[in-house]
Amino acid sequence: MSELVQRLRSTVRSIPDFPKPGILFRDFTPVLLDGKLVDDSLKALWAPFDGQVDIIAGIESRGFILGASIAVQRHMPFVPMRKPGKLPGETYQVSYALEYGNDALEVHKDAIPKGARVLIVDDLLATGGTAAASARLVEQAGGEVVGLGFLIELAHLGGRAQLGDHRIESLLIYE
Amino acid sequence: MSELVQRLRSTVRSIPDFPKPGILFRDFTPVLLDGKLVDDSLKALWAPFDGQVDIIAGIESRGFILGASIAVQRHMPFVPMRKPGKLPGETYQVSYALEYGNDALEVHKDAIPKGARVLIVDDLLATGGTAAASARLVEQAGGEVVGLGFLIELAHLGGRAQLGDHRIESLLIYE
Repeated sequence: MSELVQRLRSTVRSIPDFPKPGILFRDFTPVLLDGKLVDDSLKALWAPFDGQVDIIAGIESRGFILGASIAVQRHMPFVPMRKPGKLPGETYQVSYALEYGNDALEVHKDAIPKGARVLIVDDLLATGGTAAASARLVEQAGGEVVGLGFLIELAHLGGRAQLGDHRIESLLIYE
Repeated sequence: MSELVQRLRSTVRSIPDFPKPGILFRDFTPVLLDGKLVDDSLKALWAPFDGQVDIIAGIESRGFILGASIAVQRHMPFVPMRKPGKLPGETYQVSYALEYGNDALEVHKDAIPKGARVLIVDDLLATGGTAAASARLVEQAGGEVVGLGFLIELAHLGGRAQLGDHRIESLLIYE
């Protein structure tokens, strides 16, 4: 395990029974209190995609924190993908199934130029439903998904299998 | 008007009747597509507080975009202030009145050390209800509010009057 992964593993906090009994929640907010660890993590997330990206897209709302931060470091455009009804302009929308019911993500129609190479960023890859929807949304908007970057992956939930051939980079993986 | 303010004014998009009839919504997402403009804006927001801040706090969810970005630029801790039920650890909570009903913000109890100097960041100062709640929340957590920074201020809504003696910096002000 790399030194960065060890630092992440000792900083991410595990909270039992949140948001409901039986779930062990991996809380990345303590990482955000360590500016050096954030900087090192963002650089590691970025490295595999360096030179291949035109736009960073982040998934509401924790993905805004990491995605916008990478965009600022790289002086690159940032596109927020939001829950329905939050973006004021014309949007594309992709719906996806949750454990109970459905949810959706939207992106502004004019945010992603045709053919733009997009890196999608979120804090956590779990079952992959939201991540897969975000990739479909980028493609619906005319962009090309270069890959998806996560700070944490819960591998036992099988999210990668929902993401087809997309390149996935996760820094801290719980088996 | 400074050159930066002119660039912001020509980039922020005004969308009528969103989220409801009669409201002219100021949409900052086009700013996020211009990496240079974001960089210049974050530096201008930061400058008045340089050397006086220990922690950046951002208000969910658009405040995450700007707040986390400043924190990363300054290698400084970032603390998300979230809607109720989103933060998994023990939290402080402050409620505030909306036009119809109430809402609340939460922060992790261990996120802000006693006496830490906190800069609160959000995209927009409107009526000031959320901003005032965020300042009370920082104080409840034991921090000192150094000031509040906004990309946009809707001055006619009187938000400043809700924020007492707190220092407020807004880049683009609509009278």
